[in-house]
Amino acid sequence: MEEEERGKLSLAYPMNSGDGPYSYANTSVSQRVVIDFTKELVQKEVAEKLDIGFSSTSPPKAFSIADLGCSVGPNTFSAVENIIEAVELKFESEGLASKIPEFQVFFNDHTSNDFNMLFKNIPPIRRYYAAGVPGSFYSRIFPEASLHFVHSSFSIHWLSQVPKEVIDKSSPAWNKGRVYYSNSPDEVIKAYKAQYEKDMEELLQARAQEVVCGGLMVFIILGIANGVNPFEAGGNRGFDLIGSCLMDMVKKGIVSEEKVDSFNIPTYLMTPQEFEAAVKRNGSFSAERIEVLPHVKVNGASLNAHQLTYCVRSTLGQLIKQEFGEEIVDELFDLYLKKLEEIDPSSIAEAEKTISFLAVLKRKPSQ
Amino acid sequence: MEEEERGKLSLAYPMNSGDGPYSYANTSVSQRVVIDFTKELVQKEVAEKLDIGFSSTSPPKAFSIADLGCSVGPNTFSAVENIIEAVELKFESEGLASKIPEFQVFFNDHTSNDFNMLFKNIPPIRRYYAAGVPGSFYSRIFPEASLHFVHSSFSIHWLSQVPKEVIDKSSPAWNKGRVYYSNSPDEVIKAYKAQYEKDMEELLQARAQEVVCGGLMVFIILGIANGVNPFEAGGNRGFDLIGSCLMDMVKKGIVSEEKVDSFNIPTYLMTPQEFEAAVKRNGSFSAERIEVLPHVKVNGASLNAHQLTYCVRSTLGQLIKQEFGEEIVDELFDLYLKKLEEIDPSSIAEAEKTISFLAVLKRKPSQ
Repeated sequence: MEEEERGKLSLAYPMNSGDGPYSYANTSVSQRVVIDFTKELVQKEVAEKLDIGFSSTSPPKAFSIADLGCSVGPNTFSAVENIIEAVELKFESEGLASKIPEFQVFFNDHTSNDFNMLFKNIPPIRRYYAAGVPGSFYSRIFPEASLHFVHSSFSIHWLSQVPKEVIDKSSPAWNKGRVYYSNSPDEVIKAYKAQYEKDMEELLQARAQEVVCGGLMVFIILGIANGVNPFEAGGNRGFDLIGSCLMDMVKKGIVSEEKVDSFNIPTYLMTPQEFEAAVKRNGSFSAERIEVLPHVKVNGASLNAHQLTYCVRSTLGQLIKQEFGEEIVDELFDLYLKKLEEIDPSSIAEAEKTISFLAVLKRKPSQ
Repeated sequence: MEEEERGKLSLAYPMNSGDGPYSYANTSVSQRVVIDFTKELVQKEVAEKLDIGFSSTSPPKAFSIADLGCSVGPNTFSAVENIIEAVELKFESEGLASKIPEFQVFFNDHTSNDFNMLFKNIPPIRRYYAAGVPGSFYSRIFPEASLHFVHSSFSIHWLSQVPKEVIDKSSPAWNKGRVYYSNSPDEVIKAYKAQYEKDMEELLQARAQEVVCGGLMVFIILGIANGVNPFEAGGNRGFDLIGSCLMDMVKKGIVSEEKVDSFNIPTYLMTPQEFEAAVKRNGSFSAERIEVLPHVKVNGASLNAHQLTYCVRSTLGQLIKQEFGEEIVDELFDLYLKKLEEIDPSSIAEAEKTISFLAVLKRKPSQ
């Protein structure tokens, strides 16, 4: 476990930390809107599907929740509150209002996440005991059968690492002059997809051991619609655009071409079908619900070019800083904003082919 | 719980973080020596006293350990390794070698502790799942009956706060011109002792709910010998000396007298008898062993004046910086070193009246 995890940690790409203007905490509004939207769906699923010994005489005394890829808040705190409310309602509806358990919440993210900031942000008035768990969720990070509920929002589109082939000059999948797969030759797309499948199997395998039978996992996933080609999806084009900006900076002599060739964004936008196939292959969970969520509007409007640039910067800024140095970050995102304004940002933000979807999985009884 | 905890957190006094020359991580060698020394004692106690369902058919699948006041390492990692080794030996001796559980370790300290540094320091090769738990151990921080083993080294001599009376000008316990109780009027000593007793009851009360019946708690405590007056103990004189240095700086006009009057070090060096009395009053734990440990020698010698100053600086530096500003810290500890050299540091470091003692408590069956 540990060797593997160490390898992955070196490839960790934390969200921008702190509370500055480009921080993840201040630019994750659209993700918050989605989490709030899913509240009712989660309540319904918990009411109907959660199955952790309610009929026996001893439901668990402590109920454990993990949020995978929690970043520094505040979204993780809303998600957790929604889950706790749903579980309390479930206990009440089972006639167990007097046996509502204590809650323990495990906030997980890479070791390089700013846990100091996360811990400062945890609401002082809360209904749970809080713990932070550093490490990649693509490996074991919890004891066997120790979790009742797993949640993860907008995290599992991050791969554990860039597929090796795409930075290997001798491979047909070498991704020269690009930083993402969606507008690349088939070999690159295949390498990304293979990495995604390997990661997802590791994620499900690890959780299968950690989640109790009858426990639930809720994922909110940034992906693309079934049947859509990667290059058609606006979200992917938004990532591709980073490569185009970097290549412009290569032409200006600000960034070395070799660096761009060796840099790739380690995310893969899966379709609901791809996700469901991974769940079936793994076999330990049943997919109880997979549902495409409506497109996000903040205060009734789509994200504008400025907001989109903020989002992408808070997500990728740290990674780009690590790879290219802090000095290029401002210029890169100025360029990014300009390009976005030229191509009408709503075509990227709202394009129906990029989606968020909710997936609810239930741990099957062990055979 | 939370309101109370928040109040306490504002009074948190983290060890110096980071890995600079004055960091706790680099100056806690003498504490490490003690932890290593206690390894065998802990093994013996675990072998004889740990009682968590070995005779039933189902010993726990996951074994939970908490280290209270863990700081940033490396001492906490040694302590945890020793405990895991002891528990594994216990399982083997019970004929349960095939049922050795997975271990989950909760590293606890104040929210202001440098958890980012702690998480980076966790050994990559290890036998446990790691979690960080922010919050004061004088309040509830874990779910009911969720811990099998609690450990705490050199932490519970820290009070949850400075007793209010000693900074109240209208109180007979006002501690004017001093920053510690040991050389102060009786009223001050009483106020410190009352705070200690209140804190210890809260600590034991919280743990009584969190530790399973038959579970163990091991404390390594910095204290003074039974029957000794506080002002006689070298450790206390070492803290008093900070007050004397600060008053010198008042005379030089570097520090305001009012600030010194309102500043007090929130530690209380208890005797083994005082600790045992607190355990009896609380009633939930049996004291299985209370044993004074031999005096620490690092490489065969007592700490010299430089090492002692480093120790005190790594412990109190952050607190003094918070109260008086960073600019006085260097001068204060230069002065401290000079005074220490004048009075023969071995009288402070080695004086037999300051002690470390080991206490092993076992959670009684609930009535």
